[in-house]
Amino acid sequence: MTQITLAHGNGGRLMRELIEQVFAERLGSLAPDTRLDAAELSWATGRLLVSTDGFTVQPLEFPGGSIGSLAVHGVVNDLAVSGGRARLLTLAAILEEGLALVVLERVVNDLAEAARACGVRVVAGDTKVVARGEGSGLYLTVTGLGERLPGPALGLDAIRPGDAVLVSGPVGDHGAAVMLAREAFGLRAALRSDSASVLPLAQAAMAFEGLRFMRDPTRGGLATVMHEICAATGLGVRLFEEAIPVRPEVAGVCELLGFDPLYLACEGRVVALVAPQHAQALLDAWHALPEGEGAAIIGRIEPAPAWVVLETELGERLLPELVEDPLPRIC
Amino acid sequence: MTQITLAHGNGGRLMRELIEQVFAERLGSLAPDTRLDAAELSWATGRLLVSTDGFTVQPLEFPGGSIGSLAVHGVVNDLAVSGGRARLLTLAAILEEGLALVVLERVVNDLAEAARACGVRVVAGDTKVVARGEGSGLYLTVTGLGERLPGPALGLDAIRPGDAVLVSGPVGDHGAAVMLAREAFGLRAALRSDSASVLPLAQAAMAFEGLRFMRDPTRGGLATVMHEICAATGLGVRLFEEAIPVRPEVAGVCELLGFDPLYLACEGRVVALVAPQHAQALLDAWHALPEGEGAAIIGRIEPAPAWVVLETELGERLLPELVEDPLPRIC
Repeated sequence: MTQITLAHGNGGRLMRELIEQVFAERLGSLAPDTRLDAAELSWATGRLLVSTDGFTVQPLEFPGGSIGSLAVHGVVNDLAVSGGRARLLTLAAILEEGLALVVLERVVNDLAEAARACGVRVVAGDTKVVARGEGSGLYLTVTGLGERLPGPALGLDAIRPGDAVLVSGPVGDHGAAVMLAREAFGLRAALRSDSASVLPLAQAAMAFEGLRFMRDPTRGGLATVMHEICAATGLGVRLFEEAIPVRPEVAGVCELLGFDPLYLACEGRVVALVAPQHAQALLDAWHALPEGEGAAIIGRIEPAPAWVVLETELGERLLPELVEDPLPRIC
Repeated sequence: MTQITLAHGNGGRLMRELIEQVFAERLGSLAPDTRLDAAELSWATGRLLVSTDGFTVQPLEFPGGSIGSLAVHGVVNDLAVSGGRARLLTLAAILEEGLALVVLERVVNDLAEAARACGVRVVAGDTKVVARGEGSGLYLTVTGLGERLPGPALGLDAIRPGDAVLVSGPVGDHGAAVMLAREAFGLRAALRSDSASVLPLAQAAMAFEGLRFMRDPTRGGLATVMHEICAATGLGVRLFEEAIPVRPEVAGVCELLGFDPLYLACEGRVVALVAPQHAQALLDAWHALPEGEGAAIIGRIEPAPAWVVLETELGERLLPELVEDPLPRIC
């Protein structure tokens, strides 16, 4: 059999073989005991960080990753920007009838490789199969459990006027790479998704008492994180366009297609808000890491009104909140 | 707006409003802080049970429940049969463009009601939107975190020849109800899904030192659980057809449509394997509960070969392992 069939989802023999031969085989020692309804684990730390994320990216594979690696990084990163280290994942897959088994195998390989690199085990899983035309190959939902890293309490409530806004590297790489991988535009560029774990960046940032808040700018990009900050705090954000790192290839593709890189997803970047007196030291710490060599101080928090202002060489303008979706199915 | 649009999934304003007005509003005090990437919780018990499950049932609403209540019960039950009590859930929704908001609202109401009844909070969530024709209204993935109940260690490894097989009530109700709700057959019957929490049943069973193993017979039904036991233990199972509770309406629909109720999903039943000297006492304990009034002793574990034998009034036959899917998208 070279394709997923409805019978792969019925609880019977084919489903068992799929789970054993594709998922358990590739995950190896990271795989759950597939005979259990629930995994029982010891959890000694007394604190638990939990995050869940569905992945629907199209295409399933793109330069720099696949839905498999993206799913691991996405959840590892949600925990990392919350000040946590992912330890355990659960994995639920919704497969579409007709999905090529070789594609599924490659995706699970990517997932296993990313999980290994991030030091996380998959402790529970589930597979469902839907009929042709009721999915798009494969959807994954990953839930991550992690432990708190030492460091300051983080949160939107901790943000103060004057805080510096840092980003750990160029923005929009993932969005631009996935857009091009859809091939609909007949364009090619040397673009790769930035999909990666941000845990080293988050851990470095947690060393600073002045760290207020971190987020990974995925759907809706950098601009959307800034709007979340405004909406939650009532404070304003001022960004300096010149300072925001954007790869020339990303800027070029965006200009051609009418996108704004500030609204495109990243999957391996962190936005950090930090007290102004720690901004330079955090930037230096990030620059010392391979993941942070493109880091920059890109703005600051200001008193109300709760606007996102972009300072450009021509003056300043407001960055609107995203309403229409410029690029669906990016993660 | 009365329907889900792609923009409800882009991370921007419409997505924020959807999450606040549909999910957070209905979940009330059970809802997560929607501004967080990850929830931080205290977990004092030192042991953690984890389970994850994707839900793709069609139709989204059926007599006796909806995908919302089913998703809560499904995960609560996976933990219950593993000897655990669910405390926290995460919820990831994949919405299809065009889904009517009123349907989503009803489903989330059901989910909230089931969560309240089961005593679980939703600590983290995620929503994604896929284009028309890439989903079927709504898929949910729920991950449950629970704590271990006091009681014996359970597992396939604990099963011994001579153990009694019990089921907590009539089998096949969910499968038959969902099948009829699809309306494709032009049939109507007074059938309701048995979707419910089995925690009271599991807790009652955990009082018996002779309890070996529990499972909720969902996809593939009772027969599939029996095959899992054979495959994992190398032991045989003998079932007594006369003893297996099946509602007359379910038997009637199955006969008409050529299904076997032993392969149809239950969503509110438990299969328990227990040492023979405790079988009657467990049956009595279940009969004393409203959830267990239809409970019965239906079979026993036998030495190898690892066959599932059904004893009928006409003699005995082997129940084959499910290969083709008789009824996809049942949960």
